[in-house]
Amino acid sequence: MKRSLHDIAIAVEARLIGENHADIQGVSSLVSASHHDLVFVEDEKHLDAALKSRAGAIIAGEFAASRDADRPLLISAHPKLAFARAAQLLRDEYPANENDGVHSTAIVHPLATLETGVQVRARAVIGEGARIKNGTRIDEGAVIGAGVTIGSDCEVYPNVTIYAGTNLGDRVIVHAGAVLGSDGFGYVRDRETGHYEKFPQVGRLVIEDDVEIGANSTIDRGATRDTIIGEGTKIDNLVQIGHNVSIGRHCLIVSQVGISGSVTVGDFAVLAGQVGVADHLTIGEGAVLGARAGVMSNVPAGGRWGGFPAEPAIDWKRGQAIVRRLVKRKKAARKDESEGTQE
Amino acid sequence: MKRSLHDIAIAVEARLIGENHADIQGVSSLVSASHHDLVFVEDEKHLDAALKSRAGAIIAGEFAASRDADRPLLISAHPKLAFARAAQLLRDEYPANENDGVHSTAIVHPLATLETGVQVRARAVIGEGARIKNGTRIDEGAVIGAGVTIGSDCEVYPNVTIYAGTNLGDRVIVHAGAVLGSDGFGYVRDRETGHYEKFPQVGRLVIEDDVEIGANSTIDRGATRDTIIGEGTKIDNLVQIGHNVSIGRHCLIVSQVGISGSVTVGDFAVLAGQVGVADHLTIGEGAVLGARAGVMSNVPAGGRWGGFPAEPAIDWKRGQAIVRRLVKRKKAARKDESEGTQE
Amino acid sequence: MKRSLHDIAIAVEARLIGENHADIQGVSSLVSASHHDLVFVEDEKHLDAALKSRAGAIIAGEFAASRDADRPLLISAHPKLAFARAAQLLRDEYPANENDGVHSTAIVHPLATLETGVQVRARAVIGEGARIKNGTRIDEGAVIGAGVTIGSDCEVYPNVTIYAGTNLGDRVIVHAGAVLGSDGFGYVRDRETGHYEKFPQVGRLVIEDDVEIGANSTIDRGATRDTIIGEGTKIDNLVQIGHNVSIGRHCLIVSQVGISGSVTVGDFAVLAGQVGVADHLTIGEGAVLGARAGVMSNVPAGGRWGGFPAEPAIDWKRGQAIVRRLVKRKKAARKDESEGTQE
Repeated sequence: MKRSLHDIAIAVEARLIGENHADIQGVSSLVSASHHDLVFVEDEKHLDAALKSRAGAIIAGEFAASRDADRPLLISAHPKLAFARAAQLLRDEYPANENDGVHSTAIVHPLATLETGVQVRARAVIGEGARIKNGTRIDEGAVIGAGVTIGSDCEVYPNVTIYAGTNLGDRVIVHAGAVLGSDGFGYVRDRETGHYEKFPQVGRLVIEDDVEIGANSTIDRGATRDTIIGEGTKIDNLVQIGHNVSIGRHCLIVSQVGISGSVTVGDFAVLAGQVGVADHLTIGEGAVLGARAGVMSNVPAGGRWGGFPAEPAIDWKRGQAIVRRLVKRKKAARKDESEGTQE
Repeated sequence: MKRSLHDIAIAVEARLIGENHADIQGVSSLVSASHHDLVFVEDEKHLDAALKSRAGAIIAGEFAASRDADRPLLISAHPKLAFARAAQLLRDEYPANENDGVHSTAIVHPLATLETGVQVRARAVIGEGARIKNGTRIDEGAVIGAGVTIGSDCEVYPNVTIYAGTNLGDRVIVHAGAVLGSDGFGYVRDRETGHYEKFPQVGRLVIEDDVEIGANSTIDRGATRDTIIGEGTKIDNLVQIGHNVSIGRHCLIVSQVGISGSVTVGDFAVLAGQVGVADHLTIGEGAVLGARAGVMSNVPAGGRWGGFPAEPAIDWKRGQAIVRRLVKRKKAARKDESEGTQE
Repeated sequence: MKRSLHDIAIAVEARLIGENHADIQGVSSLVSASHHDLVFVEDEKHLDAALKSRAGAIIAGEFAASRDADRPLLISAHPKLAFARAAQLLRDEYPANENDGVHSTAIVHPLATLETGVQVRARAVIGEGARIKNGTRIDEGAVIGAGVTIGSDCEVYPNVTIYAGTNLGDRVIVHAGAVLGSDGFGYVRDRETGHYEKFPQVGRLVIEDDVEIGANSTIDRGATRDTIIGEGTKIDNLVQIGHNVSIGRHCLIVSQVGISGSVTVGDFAVLAGQVGVADHLTIGEGAVLGARAGVMSNVPAGGRWGGFPAEPAIDWKRGQAIVRRLVKRKKAARKDESEGTQE
């Protein structure tokens, strides 16, 4: 849906310079922008490129205010954030235009409760006693188990499975194929036979407001207590989070991370791609675990750790450098030797 | 469903001390227990906490028999195992209560064979010639391919896909989104063009009794022979098992493990989280591969291996310790130097 | 479907020795072959085993032409490739036999365009404006978003999700549970609150001809430009490919590989199992990244890299060898010491 530059400026707290018009329909990169698109420039050195693009308007920092531009500028203290918010604004209008309500092929249990404004698309299934709040969209083929509660303005993409009893807050986004609330990996071994028997997995999974969960990620329900994903935390694709884990607020968890059972992660922590965390550990508030760190011990708040087994990133780099130096020495020694032989 | 303590005691081979009553409906942790819940205590030091909880009854070891408890005790030689079995007992009653039979929106091929007592939930699809035995449940959106055979008392969760020709034994549990029997990653390269052409993947996938498979895990069918998962083996979420792999009986395979094609894993092996095993290797009976071990050579029976490339765990730890000592020395040397400079 | 040996010989460019017959129905390994099966022998030393099998005919190299065989031989310069092609030939007949057209429970948007010969199986959903070409098959439960284009002769397996706007070329195979075109992991942080806000993910995902994508793999759409998977590239199960990534032609990407955002991979590159590549890097044409390489810097064309952080494979192996030698020395020193003590 079109928005006027004036409305966008108010929404993203920017200052409009130039003529207000109502032609902006979306956002784009500089390269592929059309005159219906908004672009952004974070750094002054890219402003010329933006002015050469076909974009209909440009979000830029204070540096652009003095430029004599041939099109409207939206001046912001944080252009990238303003651009992201403008994109949400232009996008938000879209889903509401079509397919309101419950599709004829969706299956909603008579004892489920859907507030007005809930969309349930083709072939989705909503179980007994589930409760879904206003503005939430359940896509094609998603299966919402018995007793699940979902807040308002959530987006549940196709073929997602949410196990019975899981709770989602408001504005949660769950991408296609994700599985929420599955049984944790818990067994008791029979000492006599050596066989494994299932340990009860009867805790819940609780996902707080504003969490986003990537495609085909899996988050287990608790064993006898709850698994919790804190407010505002963002989880990428193919991430595994085990039972009884507690993730803090506003964390970033990048693709293919694996978090073992009963781990506690503090607020604002960042776990880069392919990180693994062993069970029952604590990752402190604001800690940063570098790509592929294999964490086998507790990480203090604010720590930057890397390597496997993970240690402070600086120590890991030193160890790597030492081994590399030994390799170089060896090479040099060999070269000397072979030159010696040729003499 | 409620069960009397007397019935539970018999089922889990425990000795009831105190009054029999019929109020137990589930299991719980000490913290969240209500008076309808059963809890367990493996270690005497937690017995007081259990007696302070609201639990309706407590499973405990022989150490508790002499205690003057205010509620019934179930005395067991292995309290955790007894607790797990009690949980199964209390749970088993649940699914049978509702939704027996085939849902009206399920699609069952006329040439498929379902024994009585099979549940097929909304929108599940059962292919031509599939055969499913008594007591098995196929959840919403699961797709069972042509000619698949599934034993009795299996649970196939929502949105699972089972490719044509796959065989499952009895009491197999498949969690949501898992894909069983997909084509292996096999290609032949055309030497002239450098292009890859598909190598036939026409073996089957055979899953024996009592196997559990985690959410979004993938197990490939064999290329020209079968992929086999042995009886009682438990597989966590997001695990990949390649074509022609043979996994023994009663193994544990933790989340995000990747097992390459044609690997053989012996009985009772344990593969911890994020382990990788290169193709055509053999992992001996009872071997334990530590978290994130990257296995590039055969592992003997009973071996405890770790690191990458994996080696006996003790050697890997020694190597890590040596590098760490070199880092320390370097740091100390630098400190001496800088102090020397300051003098 | 049966094919005569004569027809197979022509199709795979092999020379038939022995009597033409029409009994071949499939391909097999030597061990499980029946007299309806074709097998192949790449190496002369396996020819006797093939002749002892029950196979109805054997594809073999020139070495077999002089043998006095009791059954037909197909002589080929590249037996494995001929075998792979024969398997395709025998298999290709299968799907066309049944279920042509659109299943009554499939949901095809009135503004979607399906060419003749497109199969849409039970419960699949095709969105508004989607366009699908002749010979393509969409399996049970697959969800094809609005505006998606799919070329001819593609196979989309059950429960796949393709997000709106994604483009697939001809002969693309997408295995069950894969998610194509999901939002990338992009956020802008609000400096004041520390909260993450969604950065627009409005680029497309473009998949060229002859690509195969494994079960439960995930490929993100671009942020403001496109994600591209080049012609002929083969992707295994549980692989993650981030936004804005460009993969070249005829690459192999093995299971559980993770490729971060904005990475460029050249043609003919090979990424072995569990490899990780950090964001914005370039992997040169024909480079080979060994199993579990953790790539933190650009890799030149033709390079063979390994380890973490990845370096030329030879250097990584040297470093490993040096550490192992230090461990051995330490062990020997300890042994000497303890022997010294005993004296």
